[in-house]
Amino acid sequence: MARRRSNLGIKSRTFARQKIRKVTPGNPPGEFKISDLAEQPVVDVIQFNSDELNHWANCDVDHLPKQRAETVTWMNIIGLGNKEVILKIATQFGLHELAVEDVVNTHQRPKFEEYVDHFYTVLRLPSHVDGLYREQISIFVGKDYVLTWQEHSGDCFQPIRERLKSTKRMIRKLGSDFLAYALIDTIVDSYFPVLEHYTGKLDQIEDELGDEENGDSLKHNPIVDLYRLRSEVRVLRRDAWAHRELVRSLIANESNVITDETRLHLRDVLDHTHHLVDLAEACRDSCNDLHDLCFTFMSMRMNEVMKVLTIIATIFMPLSFIAGLYGMNFDSSVSGWNMPETRWYFGYPFALLLMLTISVSMLMFFKQRGWMKTR
Amino acid sequence: MARRRSNLGIKSRTFARQKIRKVTPGNPPGEFKISDLAEQPVVDVIQFNSDELNHWANCDVDHLPKQRAETVTWMNIIGLGNKEVILKIATQFGLHELAVEDVVNTHQRPKFEEYVDHFYTVLRLPSHVDGLYREQISIFVGKDYVLTWQEHSGDCFQPIRERLKSTKRMIRKLGSDFLAYALIDTIVDSYFPVLEHYTGKLDQIEDELGDEENGDSLKHNPIVDLYRLRSEVRVLRRDAWAHRELVRSLIANESNVITDETRLHLRDVLDHTHHLVDLAEACRDSCNDLHDLCFTFMSMRMNEVMKVLTIIATIFMPLSFIAGLYGMNFDSSVSGWNMPETRWYFGYPFALLLMLTISVSMLMFFKQRGWMKTR
Amino acid sequence: MARRRSNLGIKSRTFARQKIRKVTPGNPPGEFKISDLAEQPVVDVIQFNSDELNHWANCDVDHLPKQRAETVTWMNIIGLGNKEVILKIATQFGLHELAVEDVVNTHQRPKFEEYVDHFYTVLRLPSHVDGLYREQISIFVGKDYVLTWQEHSGDCFQPIRERLKSTKRMIRKLGSDFLAYALIDTIVDSYFPVLEHYTGKLDQIEDELGDEENGDSLKHNPIVDLYRLRSEVRVLRRDAWAHRELVRSLIANESNVITDETRLHLRDVLDHTHHLVDLAEACRDSCNDLHDLCFTFMSMRMNEVMKVLTIIATIFMPLSFIAGLYGMNFDSSVSGWNMPETRWYFGYPFALLLMLTISVSMLMFFKQRGWMKTR
Amino acid sequence: MARRRSNLGIKSRTFARQKIRKVTPGNPPGEFKISDLAEQPVVDVIQFNSDELNHWANCDVDHLPKQRAETVTWMNIIGLGNKEVILKIATQFGLHELAVEDVVNTHQRPKFEEYVDHFYTVLRLPSHVDGLYREQISIFVGKDYVLTWQEHSGDCFQPIRERLKSTKRMIRKLGSDFLAYALIDTIVDSYFPVLEHYTGKLDQIEDELGDEENGDSLKHNPIVDLYRLRSEVRVLRRDAWAHRELVRSLIANESNVITDETRLHLRDVLDHTHHLVDLAEACRDSCNDLHDLCFTFMSMRMNEVMKVLTIIATIFMPLSFIAGLYGMNFDSSVSGWNMPETRWYFGYPFALLLMLTISVSMLMFFKQRGWMKTR
Amino acid sequence: MARRRSNLGIKSRTFARQKIRKVTPGNPPGEFKISDLAEQPVVDVIQFNSDELNHWANCDVDHLPKQRAETVTWMNIIGLGNKEVILKIATQFGLHELAVEDVVNTHQRPKFEEYVDHFYTVLRLPSHVDGLYREQISIFVGKDYVLTWQEHSGDCFQPIRERLKSTKRMIRKLGSDFLAYALIDTIVDSYFPVLEHYTGKLDQIEDELGDEENGDSLKHNPIVDLYRLRSEVRVLRRDAWAHRELVRSLIANESNVITDETRLHLRDVLDHTHHLVDLAEACRDSCNDLHDLCFTFMSMRMNEVMKVLTIIATIFMPLSFIAGLYGMNFDSSVSGWNMPETRWYFGYPFALLLMLTISVSMLMFFKQRGWMKTR
Repeated sequence: MARRRSNLGIKSRTFARQKIRKVTPGNPPGEFKISDLAEQPVVDVIQFNSDELNHWANCDVDHLPKQRAETVTWMNIIGLGNKEVILKIATQFGLHELAVEDVVNTHQRPKFEEYVDHFYTVLRLPSHVDGLYREQISIFVGKDYVLTWQEHSGDCFQPIRERLKSTKRMIRKLGSDFLAYALIDTIVDSYFPVLEHYTGKLDQIEDELGDEENGDSLKHNPIVDLYRLRSEVRVLRRDAWAHRELVRSLIANESNVITDETRLHLRDVLDHTHHLVDLAEACRDSCNDLHDLCFTFMSMRMNEVMKVLTIIATIFMPLSFIAGLYGMNFDSSVSGWNMPETRWYFGYPFALLLMLTISVSMLMFFKQRGWMKTR
Repeated sequence: MARRRSNLGIKSRTFARQKIRKVTPGNPPGEFKISDLAEQPVVDVIQFNSDELNHWANCDVDHLPKQRAETVTWMNIIGLGNKEVILKIATQFGLHELAVEDVVNTHQRPKFEEYVDHFYTVLRLPSHVDGLYREQISIFVGKDYVLTWQEHSGDCFQPIRERLKSTKRMIRKLGSDFLAYALIDTIVDSYFPVLEHYTGKLDQIEDELGDEENGDSLKHNPIVDLYRLRSEVRVLRRDAWAHRELVRSLIANESNVITDETRLHLRDVLDHTHHLVDLAEACRDSCNDLHDLCFTFMSMRMNEVMKVLTIIATIFMPLSFIAGLYGMNFDSSVSGWNMPETRWYFGYPFALLLMLTISVSMLMFFKQRGWMKTR
Repeated sequence: MARRRSNLGIKSRTFARQKIRKVTPGNPPGEFKISDLAEQPVVDVIQFNSDELNHWANCDVDHLPKQRAETVTWMNIIGLGNKEVILKIATQFGLHELAVEDVVNTHQRPKFEEYVDHFYTVLRLPSHVDGLYREQISIFVGKDYVLTWQEHSGDCFQPIRERLKSTKRMIRKLGSDFLAYALIDTIVDSYFPVLEHYTGKLDQIEDELGDEENGDSLKHNPIVDLYRLRSEVRVLRRDAWAHRELVRSLIANESNVITDETRLHLRDVLDHTHHLVDLAEACRDSCNDLHDLCFTFMSMRMNEVMKVLTIIATIFMPLSFIAGLYGMNFDSSVSGWNMPETRWYFGYPFALLLMLTISVSMLMFFKQRGWMKTR
Repeated sequence: MARRRSNLGIKSRTFARQKIRKVTPGNPPGEFKISDLAEQPVVDVIQFNSDELNHWANCDVDHLPKQRAETVTWMNIIGLGNKEVILKIATQFGLHELAVEDVVNTHQRPKFEEYVDHFYTVLRLPSHVDGLYREQISIFVGKDYVLTWQEHSGDCFQPIRERLKSTKRMIRKLGSDFLAYALIDTIVDSYFPVLEHYTGKLDQIEDELGDEENGDSLKHNPIVDLYRLRSEVRVLRRDAWAHRELVRSLIANESNVITDETRLHLRDVLDHTHHLVDLAEACRDSCNDLHDLCFTFMSMRMNEVMKVLTIIATIFMPLSFIAGLYGMNFDSSVSGWNMPETRWYFGYPFALLLMLTISVSMLMFFKQRGWMKTR
Repeated sequence: MARRRSNLGIKSRTFARQKIRKVTPGNPPGEFKISDLAEQPVVDVIQFNSDELNHWANCDVDHLPKQRAETVTWMNIIGLGNKEVILKIATQFGLHELAVEDVVNTHQRPKFEEYVDHFYTVLRLPSHVDGLYREQISIFVGKDYVLTWQEHSGDCFQPIRERLKSTKRMIRKLGSDFLAYALIDTIVDSYFPVLEHYTGKLDQIEDELGDEENGDSLKHNPIVDLYRLRSEVRVLRRDAWAHRELVRSLIANESNVITDETRLHLRDVLDHTHHLVDLAEACRDSCNDLHDLCFTFMSMRMNEVMKVLTIIATIFMPLSFIAGLYGMNFDSSVSGWNMPETRWYFGYPFALLLMLTISVSMLMFFKQRGWMKTR
């Protein structure tokens, strides 16, 4: 996952920007191509009911455990790099070819689609290591199975596996829909630490600007940082909106896959997405405000520079003129009218006094205008 | 509640910013952690009907007064620092675990949730001591009880307690829903003094700018104040919107908890929230307008500085040039062409006159352009 | 109604700004306090049907004329300074306590509320004497009565009284709802002259800017005027929107108080409010455009100032340098290399010619760049 | 139609601005006043069915042709300057007094109103002679008649008259609603050439800016042109929206005046209005973009001016200083420390070389910074 | 298709701008004029069912293959330059005259229209050769035929023809509606490479700005490029919205032309259009952000230029003044007060030291202010 480091410091641009579908217009539906960068799939299966739980890590795709009555099967596939494996699993669970295509083309927007006996939802799991990265997670939920597809190995679902181990947990007693809720809740909650990261960055810029205002010189111009933050926060905001719509559709969905108890919990997730939208919008507003503030500070510094220039010029130009005046070579031997001051007894002190008077009156003029304050 | 004082003067940032949920993604629903900063709970119970009223201040949580028929019980819990106490009360009133989690995690948006036999609503009580602070107030309303949870000790509900003491008041005669209305009305009305504070600040900045325009020098640049006001007003506006939605949901709610009489009064609260939204938006618009005005004044001052520089330079540069001209050392003994002026009888007065002419004509040029006006 | 005159020329700020409810959070509903500034109420009653009309000016509130069958009673109360009078009238017509509170607290937004047998509507009557002022007018309309409350004495309803005197007028033949329509129509139409005032102001600023562009110096910077206009126009726009919603609710209202004939006329009022919204938005857009134009003109003038400075500096700096050059005191007696020009026969004319060449070529450089045009 | 020519070049302001209703608040509905500028009405009547067509140009209003069964009567009245004529026609066709008032007060927004047996619609016919002008056209459509009212003589309906002459045309075979469709289509399509005019103006400004960018000096600042275009395009956009709503209402209208065939053709008009809205919004966006571009170019030119100033000052200030240095009059006869350079054999060439070195190194410094490029 | 090359580099303006309908207001509906630039039509017919497929390339319009039962006929007409051919085909398929007019006037917005037994939809096929160009594609879909009209010869439908050749493909087994879906899918997907082109351009500008920030001098100002990109991206965004609405209408359409299977696939296309809208909006936001960044960089460079000027002026003005001071010609023979320094033994070294002190202290003042950093 090597990425070039842009000069603008926008390291992770290829990720922050909306990914573009690499499509050949006219391709038949359901056809897909495995990306060269995709990882080889690893299949992890958990079967459980309130009494027992079996866990097969790294299953062979040809000998997948069979679904059993009264039991929920959770199959988690990590890595989308093998077409055969994907098609075998798709066939076993009877997934629609368009849905399978969407699983592999990892540029989907968060969305919810309902099929006859199962539903399909795409979410994005954010992380911020060296830039914003949003992995695509596809989830299929049927009456007694949950199928999750991840792009990269990672451990975001580990807490769920831990919770499944305890027989007392609600998650063991309720069906596949509650497991799906728990997964979606985990993914949505993953946005909070990422947004906290951005809020922290904004606080840092605010502090730098505060130092600036108090007279310290700005170490670097935060405009470029804000540019980058702004575009990444915009992506997060779009995601938050999309997830909100997704959860809303899930709750409004009238299929019997989702029970009332799960619906109540999904309402809680919906509330989290509302909160995410609020946070992302507050971040965006802060970005804009800080941008304005930076620009204002730049203008203020410009004003200050101009004032210094003006003060210096306004003081020294008249002085230099007077000096130049008495440096003229009019021949005083020709007439008494030619530069008599140069022959006065106190000529030179008079000239110096004149200069002093001018500079002091100029300084008082500037003081009265309030230009002498450094800031 | 120690907070660091930012250099930018944005003292209360941690409060003005939307609080971020400190969640561990994957946590089971209903689980919560008590914050170290939370106060120990103090339980205050009032039982009343139109005939009698009993008040237990600082109840022991193990010996809470029992609910009685035909009587409304109002239990007010201040402080969320004890998990056991919270769970005991939650069990007694049969509160949903997700609602209890929301009570403790005090980062909720104002919201309204309906359960089978009661409803749950979260509001924010604003105050402005040393920055904007919005305490979370959770209210559960059942057929014959009202449960209010506050974060910090304070006395915002004291007027309600006073009104309850008088047997003639409507609040004594009507049920738990009317008490809830009175509480919500009190919280919503608390936004008015806070907004008045902000309007006052804006008026003050406007006055300062007015002084500025009339020629006084600006004591300090209000841009930073406006930056801070803007972000806080934005939070208030968001709150106003959320409370409006909340009250609207309450009115539209069809459960039999709320009577028609209360609904009529809630319509009045809805009207107040409309007014709040209008006020907050007017504040926001004023912030933006004043920001623009500040920026314009900065540009105007820049223009003024530039004009002074230009006037000085334009007058003294030609003069200095002439002075320099007659300071040249061309040897007049070689030829009569070399600086004959220096040997004129009135050479020096001629040069001075020339300079005077130039400076006067320059000044007239500036006057005609209108640059001589100081503002 | 004394108001302080702000330095920014924003004289009527206290009126242009949205008024803030002076509420004590926790106050019981329906309680209100009479403002010290409120006028003593004067009650004016007109009873009419198609046959006869009786007019009692300045009625005693204890001997109000009784309502009669088949007759419309219009009671107009001017001044809200007497609690007893208000409560007596409220009791006689059976007004809800919340509505009475709203009548007295004159900070209401334009709104429409329906009660069982009457409806209540609040409107704002604008005027522009020494700043924008919007008086609150409350109207209660029942089957056979219309109750209007005004804040201050004035004569906005006089044309209606005149129309009532003629037996041939529709207003005499139709019921209380048509009278209410006529009153609302009058109030809504009062916005047109006020908006015309603002359009006139904007035209005036446009003309001033036009003069500016044609080379005259700007008498004063219209940015501050625009700032004030902008905030007042915003208030008008908000009012226009609110009145539009109000009239729409009135038309959509299904109670039998309003007849179809009146509804048809209200559609005409609705059209007027549409027009008001359009006008107010056009004013707002003009404000913004003129603000941009002002700012551009400021930048243009800055550019011009800078050009003059640059031209002067660029011409005289090289000249001064040459003058300085030949003012050096290198001792030509030491060697022939030391400033031989000073001993040339045409040394001085040569130097002058050199200077002339430089200044002319500089001027041509500026001309080619188009900097010589004054604008 | 005399209009004053504003200094800002905004010649047709009184027309581009939304016209303000000249109303006296409190006037009874249906009363109207004839404007002094209104033309005397000329009535033109066409009666046709698929078999025959009669045309009375300039009818006497007292001897209007009678309506006949199975025949469509199109009465076109040009000029609204005679109250009696208007009232006679209104009476003959049973028009509502509010509609007649709207016909005369030519400040209406495009709108659609339905009456029992006819509908009434107001449109605006744009033209661009010496500024934008939008004439009000009122159309009444009944079962067997169409009534059109124009403000000024003009010939926008001539193509319709031509089409009516041919018996093969659909317009002869279908009823009054199809004629109304044809009229509305003509009016809506009149916006296209006007918008084309504005697009042309914008292209022209774009070309001028392109020349500017390529180094030619800008002949005049297009900011003022853009200001004017912007406000006129805004009016057109508002009109386009209003007409779209109007046509949408016409199609949605369920009266039996409009047949399905006509409805299909109105859908085509609706599509045209969609196109108009798109065009007007594209124009508006272009205006804004060009405004930004102009402003950027202004800043770029400012930068350039500043660079020239800085280059000149930075080169000549050190040179002048050196010249001044060796122009000092320290007495070399006192000590050998006093200005020994002036007595060097190559003192003067050394000084010149020093100056050359300084200016060349300065120029290289600027070159390295990229300031030497003229643009 | 020759287009003029604007100086602003906006080569393809005539295409990027919304095309204006060249209409003569008042023209009868259904009448159209062939454009001189239109190509001569070439008709290509494919008839297929699951068993067989016949392909007639370049058919004679008078001997078109007849429609057959159980067979789908796809007629693709390239070029709209022959009125007779168009009318013949229109008559054969019973197309409405308004639809035919829309086919020929290639300025339509993407739209969907339903007729009794077929539907008509207009799409735009984008391409980016030497500027953005969007060809109009009109599609008529009946029970057993699909009619496609293209403006120019090209090969965007070739992949579909290839897919049709294989008997195993779904497209052979399903009806005309699935063929229409495949065509629409191809057209919509054609926007992805075009948007990728624009994203690439934006990345390139971002890189240039990054180089700029790192100290390289900007090769050219990207503001003009951004201006052009902005207007073209706006067109793409508008198209994306319009296509989204179009596909939404197609899915919501309840005629029996579209089967459920096709509807499922259209949902996939709808998702693509959602993605397109997201992409286009992200592009637009990037344009705006980069524009802001450019402007900020311009201001930063201006600041830098001003700083250099100020530093130079502030250092050399005092120095020059001192030099001028000791260049005065006060006659030291008259009194000892007249310029005694010039007769000091170390007078000249003292003056040089004074100058050095001044310049060093000035430099330290600038260093302390942080003005000495080049960026």
